[in-house]
Order: sequence, then C-alpha cells, then structure tokens
Amino acid sequence: MAKTEIRVIYGDTDQMGVVYYGNYLRFFEAARSDFLREKGARWRDVESTHGVYLPVAEAKVNYKRPAFYDDVLVVETKLAELGRASLRFEYRVLRGDDLLATGHTVHACVDKQGDIREFPAALSERLRP
Amino acid sequence: MAKTEIRVIYGDTDQMGVVYYGNYLRFFEAARSDFLREKGARWRDVESTHGVYLPVAEAKVNYKRPAFYDDVLVVETKLAELGRASLRFEYRVLRGDDLLATGHTVHACVDKQGDIREFPAALSERLRP
Amino acid sequence: MAKTEIRVIYGDTDQMGVVYYGNYLRFFEAARSDFLREKGARWRDVESTHGVYLPVAEAKVNYKRPAFYDDVLVVETKLAELGRASLRFEYRVLRGDDLLATGHTVHACVDKQGDIREFPAALSERLRP
Amino acid sequence: MAKTEIRVIYGDTDQMGVVYYGNYLRFFEAARSDFLREKGARWRDVESTHGVYLPVAEAKVNYKRPAFYDDVLVVETKLAELGRASLRFEYRVLRGDDLLATGHTVHACVDKQGDIREFPAALSERLRP
Repeated sequence: MAKTEIRVIYGDTDQMGVVYYGNYLRFFEAARSDFLREKGARWRDVESTHGVYLPVAEAKVNYKRPAFYDDVLVVETKLAELGRASLRFEYRVLRGDDLLATGHTVHACVDKQGDIREFPAALSERLRP
Repeated sequence: MAKTEIRVIYGDTDQMGVVYYGNYLRFFEAARSDFLREKGARWRDVESTHGVYLPVAEAKVNYKRPAFYDDVLVVETKLAELGRASLRFEYRVLRGDDLLATGHTVHACVDKQGDIREFPAALSERLRP
Repeated sequence: MAKTEIRVIYGDTDQMGVVYYGNYLRFFEAARSDFLREKGARWRDVESTHGVYLPVAEAKVNYKRPAFYDDVLVVETKLAELGRASLRFEYRVLRGDDLLATGHTVHACVDKQGDIREFPAALSERLRP
Repeated sequence: MAKTEIRVIYGDTDQMGVVYYGNYLRFFEAARSDFLREKGARWRDVESTHGVYLPVAEAKVNYKRPAFYDDVLVVETKLAELGRASLRFEYRVLRGDDLLATGHTVHACVDKQGDIREFPAALSERLRP
C-alpha cells in the first residue's frame, strides 16, 4: 500500500467551502502514480518501456465527510485486482484517522492504437505484492 | 431530460491528447445544473429558497471512448431516482451519435448543519417528470 | 472582436465564494479559441495546416470585481498585436455591463521543435481585422 | 524565501504534452501559502485572526520553458513589496537549475465587506524579512 500526502489549496475547494468533488480524481491520480513509483515502475515508464497505456475505464468515488482548505490529506492506494488486461486500484482518503472518501479506478491495458493488450509480464511481477 | 453542450478546451485535456478523466465530473455538474434550470429550480435557489443542500455522496463514470480537443460534447441528464432524502442523476456524454461516457451522481439532502433532511415537497414536485 | 459566453459552475469557484483566480486563464483560452474560429481559423488548424504552434509566453490578469457561481460571463477578445513571430490577445471579462477583469496573453510562433518561426502569411491575413 | 515542491500529474498537463498555462497560478497559490506558513502565519489564520482577506488583484506569468509530466518543480516565493494595503509576491518555477517560469501576484488587503483595510501591523511584522 502506498501513501500520498496532499495539502488542499484554495484551487481545490469550491464555494461550499469544501474540496470540489471532481478533484478527488486528481488526488487518486497522484496516488496511483506514487504507488507505481514505489514499485519501481513509474507511470511514464509503463508507456515508454512496455509500450502499453493504462487509460481509465471506470472511476468511482464515495464521499463520506468533507475535506477542507489547508487539510493535509493522505491517500492510501492498493492494487485490488490485476487481470489479464486490466487493473483495479482502490483508494482511501484520510485526514488523520477520519475516513473522508473511498473510491476505485479500473484501467484497461491497451497499445498505442487503443487495442486491448495483455498486461506485460515484467510489469505484473513488479506490481504484485 | 436536459441537454448541455460543452466545447472541449486545452485546459480540459491532458498529455494523452484526450479529456482528463476527472473533468467529466465538471461536465456532469454543469449538466445537472442545466437540468434544474430547465425545471425552473436553479441550484442556488435550492440552497437559498429551500434551505437544503445537495452534496454529492457518490459519483461514478464509465469511460467508453475518448473525447478530444475542440469536440462539442452533449451531456444528457436525467433524474433517475428521487428518494425521501436523496437524488440520483444519470448522465450520458455524446459526440454526435457516439456515446463517450456514462455516469451517475447520488446527492444527499442535508441542512446547513449537514444533518439529513427530507427532500422539500415543493422541490420534488418541480423535479418530477 | 469575438464574444464568448461562460456560465460559472461550482468547479470554477473556491471557498471565498468567487471564481478562483487561475480559472480566468481557462476562460481566456476558450475566448481566443472562439476568436480564431470566427476568423475561420480554428486553433487546431493552425497546428495541422500551418505547422506552427502558438504557446503562451506571457499571461496577465487584472481582477477588478469577483465573479460568482451561476454568473453568465462574457469574454471579449481582440487581437491587439500581430508581430512577425508573436501574437498578443487582449481580454475583457464582463457580467452585464460590469467589467470584472481584464488581461492579455502573448503567444510565440514556433515550429514542432520549439524554434521561433515567422508567422504564416496565410494565417495573418485571416486574423487581421 | 520559501520553496515549494510540486510533482506534475497528468491532470496538470494538456494535449501539447506540457503543463497547462493556467495551472501555474495553482502552483503560485500553493507556494505563497507555504511562504506564510514558514512565517508562522497560515493563510487561513489571516482571515480568522486578523479579519482581513487578501484577494488577488493582479497575476502575471512569464513562461520560459515547458514543464512536463512527472517533473518535480520547485517554486521559490518571496515577498517583494509590503504596502499599506497591499502585498506583492514574486515567484520562480524551477526544475533543477532550469528556470521554467517567473511571475507575480498582487494582493489587496480588504475586510469582509470588500473595503480596503490597512495591513494589520501584527501580520506585517511577521512577514517582513
């Protein structure tokens, strides 16, 4: 499991005084990028080294409590599924011990033409726990 | 069903050359705001007139095909459920006849203190088809 | 002079209850894109047809009055300068008769390698008033 | 001078493959917030403790070289002017030794009603070098 710290800026909030709901998907992206980096597999290496892309096929967020300006959030990321041609990450957004949001993203594995490709073995070995 | 037109700008895209996945939640927001406006119930009236807030409790997007710079997208919005204290909107993002993405948001009905409130009758009458 | 209409969404605002200062640069981008479109020269044609890019070299905004959620803003755009290898757009953001902000962007004319290129004659003819 | 580290995510880039020009204003905001924090004066304390707001009156960016996905940027911030009722921050965005962008923001000092207020003495003492 990787942990990513994010400090909330004004630009993340909206006039309800809380973090705008769409910005959690930005936080998830930063978090899964850190997850790969910890595994020694930077997201941009995936593209240049393995020739595959991992576009998001599905994203979901469940909002439990609001996040506020200047909060230091921690996003915990784990790889929940590693299929033949897809990945599923799960995320938990915390402020201290408070769970603010959960969510997941599903990624397809495709080549430059957008055709489904089997997940590269070298990469799955890296990612498995 | 309401229809909202959105022209994609550079600021919506990312370096994959497609609309960034998080920005669909911005499009959904613009779309449900138009939905309410068509019903004669502007989102900000909900707050000032009815004293309730409709924060997002859940959001989901399924990405089917990429959207590109300068595309004119149409977001179709319908109210799929109108519960005692919650709402569910469903969205379809199209470019011409091509379905690019689908998704939904679930909204709780709360008062200023964040406590669950029954959905105001005057408002539900407006929103029902 | 081109006019672009923008309706402010929650995602554009911050917790001060006004449009976040960085988002005016999004509005400017939408506006200059409309400016070119009116001249029959879409921004993406510039790249594919003329082989030049117009990256922003400088951007400035002067904020005079806040813009609010659900406001319908009008951005007026004019081409203030058309140099040998650069462009300068000027913008005015209005809500009704109220001037909310002014600003400009300066764009270099470069080729794919990022080297300065003379502005294509075919394009400057289109853009001149 | 304060230094703020920012790692570029996909959500910061656009289809030109570089950081979108508007996002530098997000970076500047994170940076000046860190500047105040180092001085023991968090931005949200300014509002709650001193009763003044520091809305942006002017923002400018000069773009010298592009920033890319996954870059670790450093934003250096200094307080360039501290007037009776205004502030001016200057920023430099670096990647290693490369200067990518410079810019400034000017902030007015106003009360809750938006009227110009003299800068609180307790706060200016903190901010002066």
